[in-house]
Parts: sequence; structure tokens; C-alpha cells
Amino acid sequence: MINISFPDGSIRQFEKGTNALDIAKSISEGLARKVLAAKVNGKVTDASRPIDQDASLVLLTWDDAEGKETFWHSSAHLMAEALEAIYPGIKFGYGPPVDNGFYYDVDLGGREISQDDLKKIESKISELAAKNSPYLRTEISKEAALNYFTEKGDEYKVETIHELNDGEITFYRQGNFTDLCRGPHIPHTGFIKAVKLMNIAGAYWKGDEKNKQLTRIYGITFPKQKELDEYLQLLEEAKKRDHRKIGKELEIFVFDDDVGPGLPLWLPNGGAIIEQLENLAKKTEEEAGYYRVKSPHIAKESMYLTSGHLPYYAESMFPPMEMDGTKYYLKAMNCPHHHKIFSATPKSYKDLPLRLAEYGTCYRYEQSGELFGIMRVRSMNMNDAHIYCTEEQFESEFQAVNEMYLKYFKIFGIDKYVMRFSTHDPAKRGQKYLDMPELWMKTEDMVRNVLIRSKIPYIEVPDEAAFYGPKIDVQIWSVIGREFTLATNQVDFGQPKRFGLTFKNKNNQDEMPLVIHRAPLGTHERFIGFLIEHYGGNFPVWLAPRQVSLLPISDRHLDYAKRLEALFRKQRIRVELDDRSEKIGRKIRDAEMKKIPYMLVLGDKEEQESKVSVRKHGEGDKGQQTIEAFMEQVKNESAID
Amino acid sequence: MINISFPDGSIRQFEKGTNALDIAKSISEGLARKVLAAKVNGKVTDASRPIDQDASLVLLTWDDAEGKETFWHSSAHLMAEALEAIYPGIKFGYGPPVDNGFYYDVDLGGREISQDDLKKIESKISELAAKNSPYLRTEISKEAALNYFTEKGDEYKVETIHELNDGEITFYRQGNFTDLCRGPHIPHTGFIKAVKLMNIAGAYWKGDEKNKQLTRIYGITFPKQKELDEYLQLLEEAKKRDHRKIGKELEIFVFDDDVGPGLPLWLPNGGAIIEQLENLAKKTEEEAGYYRVKSPHIAKESMYLTSGHLPYYAESMFPPMEMDGTKYYLKAMNCPHHHKIFSATPKSYKDLPLRLAEYGTCYRYEQSGELFGIMRVRSMNMNDAHIYCTEEQFESEFQAVNEMYLKYFKIFGIDKYVMRFSTHDPAKRGQKYLDMPELWMKTEDMVRNVLIRSKIPYIEVPDEAAFYGPKIDVQIWSVIGREFTLATNQVDFGQPKRFGLTFKNKNNQDEMPLVIHRAPLGTHERFIGFLIEHYGGNFPVWLAPRQVSLLPISDRHLDYAKRLEALFRKQRIRVELDDRSEKIGRKIRDAEMKKIPYMLVLGDKEEQESKVSVRKHGEGDKGQQTIEAFMEQVKNESAID
Repeated sequence: MINISFPDGSIRQFEKGTNALDIAKSISEGLARKVLAAKVNGKVTDASRPIDQDASLVLLTWDDAEGKETFWHSSAHLMAEALEAIYPGIKFGYGPPVDNGFYYDVDLGGREISQDDLKKIESKISELAAKNSPYLRTEISKEAALNYFTEKGDEYKVETIHELNDGEITFYRQGNFTDLCRGPHIPHTGFIKAVKLMNIAGAYWKGDEKNKQLTRIYGITFPKQKELDEYLQLLEEAKKRDHRKIGKELEIFVFDDDVGPGLPLWLPNGGAIIEQLENLAKKTEEEAGYYRVKSPHIAKESMYLTSGHLPYYAESMFPPMEMDGTKYYLKAMNCPHHHKIFSATPKSYKDLPLRLAEYGTCYRYEQSGELFGIMRVRSMNMNDAHIYCTEEQFESEFQAVNEMYLKYFKIFGIDKYVMRFSTHDPAKRGQKYLDMPELWMKTEDMVRNVLIRSKIPYIEVPDEAAFYGPKIDVQIWSVIGREFTLATNQVDFGQPKRFGLTFKNKNNQDEMPLVIHRAPLGTHERFIGFLIEHYGGNFPVWLAPRQVSLLPISDRHLDYAKRLEALFRKQRIRVELDDRSEKIGRKIRDAEMKKIPYMLVLGDKEEQESKVSVRKHGEGDKGQQTIEAFMEQVKNESAID
Repeated sequence: MINISFPDGSIRQFEKGTNALDIAKSISEGLARKVLAAKVNGKVTDASRPIDQDASLVLLTWDDAEGKETFWHSSAHLMAEALEAIYPGIKFGYGPPVDNGFYYDVDLGGREISQDDLKKIESKISELAAKNSPYLRTEISKEAALNYFTEKGDEYKVETIHELNDGEITFYRQGNFTDLCRGPHIPHTGFIKAVKLMNIAGAYWKGDEKNKQLTRIYGITFPKQKELDEYLQLLEEAKKRDHRKIGKELEIFVFDDDVGPGLPLWLPNGGAIIEQLENLAKKTEEEAGYYRVKSPHIAKESMYLTSGHLPYYAESMFPPMEMDGTKYYLKAMNCPHHHKIFSATPKSYKDLPLRLAEYGTCYRYEQSGELFGIMRVRSMNMNDAHIYCTEEQFESEFQAVNEMYLKYFKIFGIDKYVMRFSTHDPAKRGQKYLDMPELWMKTEDMVRNVLIRSKIPYIEVPDEAAFYGPKIDVQIWSVIGREFTLATNQVDFGQPKRFGLTFKNKNNQDEMPLVIHRAPLGTHERFIGFLIEHYGGNFPVWLAPRQVSLLPISDRHLDYAKRLEALFRKQRIRVELDDRSEKIGRKIRDAEMKKIPYMLVLGDKEEQESKVSVRKHGEGDKGQQTIEAFMEQVKNESAID
């Protein structure tokens, strides 16, 4: 008998040589029907692989990232089988799973695939899936493997096998298709209930443009048709809400060739959103006892040698400027500057926790091919702060940071979020991780405690911490269900050491503070990109670039409109006046297009009675209000709290 | 007879060969007693020089910069006479006037001058001044000049004469002292009624460290003893209020060797002041119909080639970063980015005036020797905005900008200010100035109209405009009377042309907008430097980094203090808590040192009655108040309006 330990900490005994599927069945048939793969001692394998010794076991289903990955990898094999059935003689490159689905690079020998063909291939995949063919694993010698694919005439697989070590080669077969593959795979093709081939692209073999161009076919599959339908609907919705499209339509940001790629120019509407976000952050942080600081966007090489960004992070930084015999670098993060501010004056335990906040613009070099709207840029306005605290203060400081996240999630209507808590591997201390065992254990425990106590959904990811401390990546989902990485919180005991940061403790001895890096609103670039999609451009009143559009019915009412404009501005209501000589219907339509929350129709009656006729974006006429009542309402809706 | 025209436009006839002094006398004896020099046809000369033809004449007195300059230059000669009397054989280098006074570089032949000696020299100067010796001008041949100084044994003067052209050499003599000098000088030494020698420094002959080191003696003189007394008092006060000293004491900013010279780090107290200034600017600008934008701190070389900053302004810019085969530059000003924002979307006359505002950080290269605290730096947070308008809108836009200045002057208690209005010289259009005659005339007229209409004190300075339009330099005086250059407003018809900015006018034709550059609050660096001196660190409540210090009498009252801290923070009152176990007297003294406007003493009685005992900085006990009343008061005093 062997001992199998489960994620909940329980341990049960099973026959030696049992497998994950059998173990799942012993729990429930329902569960077994959902198991796609298994994680045995931290390694993902086929659920059907025998387990021969004591092991930890995680049953992977569609709900696990690794379950999905296995599912899509198996789907790539299934698509390959379908392709081979339709295009005899086809040759195969690589066919991996990706973030959403999978692809396979294929050599069609000069044949071409049309959109209609994709439908045909989808049908074939569904037909083959229905056969419930098991995915069968075989270990094979290098020679036999080479023979198989040489005979088959697939030079790509032959080339790949040459790069592998004998004794480590496996084939997987399902139905009539055999592939060179490390696995793992799902139990059988029957799990694949819905398929959609997304598109076709050209891709050089091994990504090298000197090699032959293959055809890359992207697809996605699901265990249920309903999930595919939802996914396609999400894509459709996401396309409509594409932040680049709406960003342009609503004049939020632009890029300019003379400024440079990845360097957004924020137009007045973008500037207004930024102001509101910063107001929110500043108010929240002020109340939470943060201090605002301001630091230059450059520093000498020596500072980044101290921080270790040079040379380790050099390729993500902009190249240096040489001046007065010294190299200056654009900052890629604010922390080193903040550490300098911390150490500018002597500190005692009475000064801690010290929370230094700055919307500092950082510059990071990204390959131009990696740039994507404002979601992936080279200049970043970060909702940054660094908290310097004692070990005793750490847990409550960290908890306060998490509460700030929750507060923001509520404000922005973010209902789905997960914190990925990355911890270190004690075996790798001194290499991959700083060798400060006590701090690792303490801070990881405290972070875990806080996460559990605050009931924040989280997953713990071992061996993915930063070099200098545990970290948390915050994943959020937009209202249409797309996932975004919002921000990263990090615990840092490396930088304080490198910068020699100290404070006098109660015994008047020098002690090193811990540092928490946090940025709950991420960067303006990424967060506004997210918000554009999240709201589909329909920003709530408090955040809308323009809150009120004044629509005089005729030029006769222009004076009244101008009076209101001045009055509203004085109240800091973001107003615009449509003073064109257009029909009121046209003015309303245009204001609707601009997604301005309130439209005020101004005619004789309104002017005589000092009132406004209110229309709400997307909702239509809301009747008349006095000027005061309307202003009061907008101000209430704009209050940050 | 010749025609003499005066600054007020009047023209009077005088005998040929008359001089400025005589002309002054013909107006009034009192005036004549004040004339130090004259500007004849734009050139400053001795007031006693005969005028032989029709000319424009400005009589220069102590109230004119050029009058002061002449006064101090003559004082340098007088000091030289005194020095020669005391140190026979002394040799003289250069002896020019400077911003405040004058200096003379002298070779004492190994002798040294002590502070006591300075007193002695001052007495000698006063003694010589009282002789009312006239400054007498002689034209002299190069040979005779060389002979004179060779005989005298002054190799510095000999060297200087060698560099001059024969026929252009003049000597000036007063009393027993003759100097090689181009002039002009004041009528006689009797004008110099008060003298103070400030200090002694080493200075290489001709500023070249390969040459001999001379002794530089700095002095200042005045036409009245009272003016000297006031000046010395101002210096004393300025020293106490030195922004570098107070900036350090109050922990407002620091510099760090690893960040770089001229790149201030704003500590929390500086960050708080910045926030308040930006809040003021944002509120004011919002009300005035400005839009906020945000642009990166870098751009490609191509943009600065378009703007013309490259190559003309290159040496004031930071060196480039080479990336992806392109040069990127840190921005030295925000305008080009704003022009790009203007042109990002099509504009019609209905969109104008468009006012784009940004606190953009600009980077300019200054020689490290030129850097001075935060008054002269390399990174600048500028209260920047660009107003794009039609010619018809220009005057009212410009007026609104001036009104904004006046509003700010009032808020900051700046009572003395002058706008230096620099106009172009029509003869130099096409060379020194853009060749757009109509725009020059129109905009200069409009600016002048606005200045006159708004009753702002201004002086017009011909031939000092920018290449691309007239400009206004704003000079302000701190409460102790020191002068600062706050900001520059510029009219620009060059950049809009270079960037091809256009809008559709009422006839649907493309027209070029005018651009007004304006920054009423200057840069944070310079303005906060000014404010530190202006307030002597005693910032008014609305601007004070920390507004309230909570001083619990004993640890027993710490909980009450903490409750108040949270309450105040929630109201955005900038509070700090002195939770040290110190005696209350000590806590009060320390809070006074930090110049925190309000100190709240918290003891049993206060806690029981939910009150606070209020002390005001520098004023002492103000009695008890309820928490609510106190908060209300601070909030009222903090309101920006």
C-alpha cells in the first residue's frame, strides 16, 4: 500500500500502482468523469499513469489552469488527426496549448486552407472526438522514433527527435494518429465536446525566418458546447469593447510616430480619467496614512548598481544617457528613489510604518512587437507606494493593503478576482532566492494568514516568488469575463539590505525595515485599458471624462448655456457645451455617441424657470430639475468614498 | 539747434553740444542731482558727454538698471583709488559691476587683506567719495596708453590694451586714479554715499586657472546710507530664509549623489506642498476652462527636429538615448508634446480656444556650477499650459492669463511684481525674428493693450522678444524684498507653423492657431524655493506640509490622540501625532521648530470633554475648542479659492 496525500491535508492508503483516475472513482464517479490529468508530487501527468510510491496528489479538472492546458494540448493532437484524415501527407511542426486554446504548425505541401475548410476540419474533429479514443502513451527508443517519422516522411518530427535524448522519448496515440509528445494528455477524446477553429496564420518553422513558412491553425475546445458559445460571445463583446477602438472613438489616448511606440499621449478625456483615478488614490492613501513624495525620472548608474537593476534588469531598461562623464538611466521603477528618500533622514521605530506614495512614471523597454495599445507600453504611470515597516508591523500593514484592494474592487464593480501568492522553494535559498530563511518563513506565513483572514480568493504557487521575497499577483476579471493582471504586491528584504536601510529600534540599535511594494490601481495605462473594456466606454459619472453636455435648443439659448457652463465649472463639474447651430436631435445623438452620462436640453422653458431638462445616456428623458438639484445630484454621484 | 526726443514722446530743442546733465537741469535741479548717466539713441554714455545731433534721450537714475550699473562701475574705480592709496604698487585686472554691486580683481604683490583691512578700505573710499571728484574721460592713443601702464608697471592693463584697437581707447580719471576704461561713469564721486565691502575671493586672471590667481574684492555702494542699511538687513534676513537651509531643516527636499546633481528628491513635506500647489492650479485652471493632458517625458529626435529644439537648443537638453536605431530625448519643454495632442484630432474654430494643461516634468542640462538648491535645477515640474486660439480670441485669452497671475499674487501675498514685456525690432525681421510682420504688430499691440488695461506694472523692452513672438518675463519680489524671475509667458506663431497646426475656420478653410505658452506658478522647484524664503518656512495653513500636530500630554492620552488622527485624516487635514514619551513642553518646542501652524495639546480634560487645546505657531495658547469647531476652522483656512 502507498500513502496518497490530498490538497486538504488528508492522507489515504491505496494499492501500489493505482492511478489518479481510480483514486478519483474511489471518491465519486462524478469526480472521475471530470478528471483531465493529475499532479503527482507537483508534476502534471496522465491521470492513467500508475503511482508506485507515496505521493501528494492533485486531481486536475477544467477548473485548473493545468487541467485546461492538458485539455487543449490533447485537442491539438485531435486536430492533427482530423487534418491528416483530410490532407494525407501533411507534416507537423509543433502543436502546443496557448492561453486560450491551442495551435498546430503544419506543412500542407502547397495546399491551402480556406475559412470553409475550417468548418470541415471542425466537423471531422467532432466526429473523431465522439469515438472516445483513449490517449495512449508509449516509451520508445530514439532509433525506433526516428524510423517511424522517417518512414512517415515528416522531417520536422525527425529534426525534433534528433534534439532529444534516447530514453526520454515518448509517443502518444489516439485513434489513427501518433505523435511525438512528452504529454501529459486527457484520458480520451470524448471529453472534447465543442470545437472552434479560430484562424490561420503563417509561422516560420522554429520561429526562424530563414526556415520554411508553415501554416499555423489556431483552435479552441471546451468540455461543453455552452462554454464555447459563451466564449465566442465574450470574444464578440471584447471586440466591441476593445480599448484601442473605444480609446480612439472617445478620444482618450493616441500614439504619435514622432513621440514613439508605446508612449501614449493622453488627450483631455484621458487626462480627466487620470485625474479622477489619482484623486481616488490620493484620498484613499491620505486617509490610510501615506505620504506623497516626488522623485525625478532619472538617476545615475550607481543607484541602479546598488539596487541590482544593473546589470540584471538592464535589457528591460532604456539605454543610458551619458552626461558629465556619468551614465544616467530612466527609472524602470520608483523603489530605488523611494529608498533614497527613506534614508535621507535618520529614522527611528517611531517613524515606522512609513508609507511613501507617488504616481511616478516609469520607463521600460518592451520589444515593439510586444506593445499592445495602452495595455503593454513603454511609459507607465504607476499607483506606486512603498511601505517601510518593522516585522511586527508587517502583518497589519499587509492586511491594510489588501483591504485597499477590496475597497477598490467594490468601487469599480470588480466581482471576480484572485490573488496568486508566489512562495519560495526552501531548497533553492542562496541561489534562486535570498538566503534569509527566517524572513522567508515569517513573511510567507504572515501573508498567508492575511489572505485567509481577509477571505480573499487566492492560490498559492510554490517556487515562483521574487528573488527578494514572496509576491502576490492580482488577477481581475472584467464584467464580460476577460482576465487581466492588475498589479503585483511584493515583500522585499533584498532592497533594504542593498541600500543599507535602517532604523533605530526600541533598544536604540540599527535594524533593517521590511519593504512592501504595492500598486492596487496598477498603472494608469493598464488599468484604464481594463476600465475601458470593463465599462465598454460608459464610465460612471464620477469617472466620466465629461459628465454633462449642455445642449441649447437654439442659438437663442446659448447665453443661458454659457452661464450654466461657468456655474458648473466653478463646482468642478466636468461640462461641455455644444454650441453648434445644429438641431437638438443631432446634438443629443452626438452626445450619446460620446457616452456623456448627462445631457441637459436647454430651451425657453428651462431658461425662464432656471431649470434643466435631463437626459441620461442610454436611458433617455429624465424630466426637469432645478439647476441646484441637478448640480447636487452630479456632485453626489461624483463623490469619491 | 538739435531736437531731443524724450521717452514720453515729447521733443524739445537744445543748443548743439549740450549734454544730458544740462538738459536735466533745464527740467529741474532736483532731477539733475539724480542723473547718473544717459541713454542717447539707445546707448548708455556719460551724462556730461556733448550731444551734437538730433537724438532720443533717457536720463538714467538709480531707479534704472543701467543707472545702477554705471554707479557700481564708478564705485569699482573709486575702490581702486582707495586700494592704491593703501597698497602702493597694487596692480589691477578687471573691475566690472555685477548684479548687486561690483568687484575688482587685484594683484597685491603678495600682501594679504583681512576683514579688518576691509573696514579701512571702506573708510578710505568714503573719504575719497566726499571729495566730489569728477570722472574725467580722455581719448588716448594705443601707444600712449601702453606707455602709461608700462611705466606704472601694471602688466594686466598692458595685456588688455594689446587686445584693443588704436583709436578706440579711453582712460577715465577721478582724483588721483586713472584707469583704462570704456565707461560710462557717473558725474562725480559725491554720489557714492554708502559703501560696504562684502567679501574677498580668489580669481584667476581672465578666469583661466593656468594664469596667476588674483584677489577679488566684492563691494556694494548706494546713494544713501539708509539704502545700504536696508540692503544689509535684507541679506541678513535672506540668509535666515535661505531656501536650502530651511528646505533641509523642514525636510522639504534633498539631493542625493546617486540620483544626481540638480535632481531634487521631494520628501513628504515637499510632496505635500506640491500637492497643494497642484490642487490650486488644477482648480483654477478647471474653472478657467483648461483641460488636463498627460504626455511622456521622452520623444524621438524627429519631434525635436520639427520643433527646432534640435539642433538650436541641443546643449540645454540631456544627451539622447539610442534605442531601436532611433534617438530619444528627455523633454526640455512640454510644448511639442502638446502640439501633437492638438493635432491628434481634427479641429474647428468651435474647438478653440483649446487650453491644454499639464504639470509635466522637463529636463534641462545646466552646468553643475550653475546649479543652486532648487532654484536652479535639472528637473523641473512646470505649471505648464498651452492655449491654442484664433487671432480674435488672443486678446481675451491673454487677459485671462494675466488675471490668473493677479489672482495668484493675491493668494501668495506677492505685492510687488513687474512684467517685462519684450518686443521685437522690425528691422531684424527675417533674421533675429520670424518674418511675419502682421502677427508681430497685432500681437504686440494686443499684449500692450492688455497690460495697460489690467493696470499691471510693466516695462517694455525692445528687441528682446523670442524668435517666434513677443514674451513677458514675470518678476516678483519676496516679502523681504528679493527679486525672483517667476515665469515667462510667450506668444508663439513659430511652433504652430513648424508643426503645421491648423483648424477649420468659419469659412471651412485651414487656418493656423496662435499659441500662448504660460506657467503662472512657474516650476515647483523655483516657486517653492521662492515661497520658502517668502514665508520664511512659516507656510500658511492651506499650504503647510503638516497643518496640525497632536500632542498627547502623556501616554494615557495616546488613544484619544489616535482617534483624532484618524478623524482628521478622514477630513484630509494633514496631521501628525507626536507619540513620543516626552514632556509636553518638549513636544511643543519641537512642533514649533517644525513650524506646524496648529498644535493640539491633549490631556484628561480635553479627552473628557471631546475638546482640544489649541496653540498657534509663534502665537501660543488660543484656548479650547470642540473637535468639530477646530476641524471646521482648519478646513476653512485650507479652502482654495
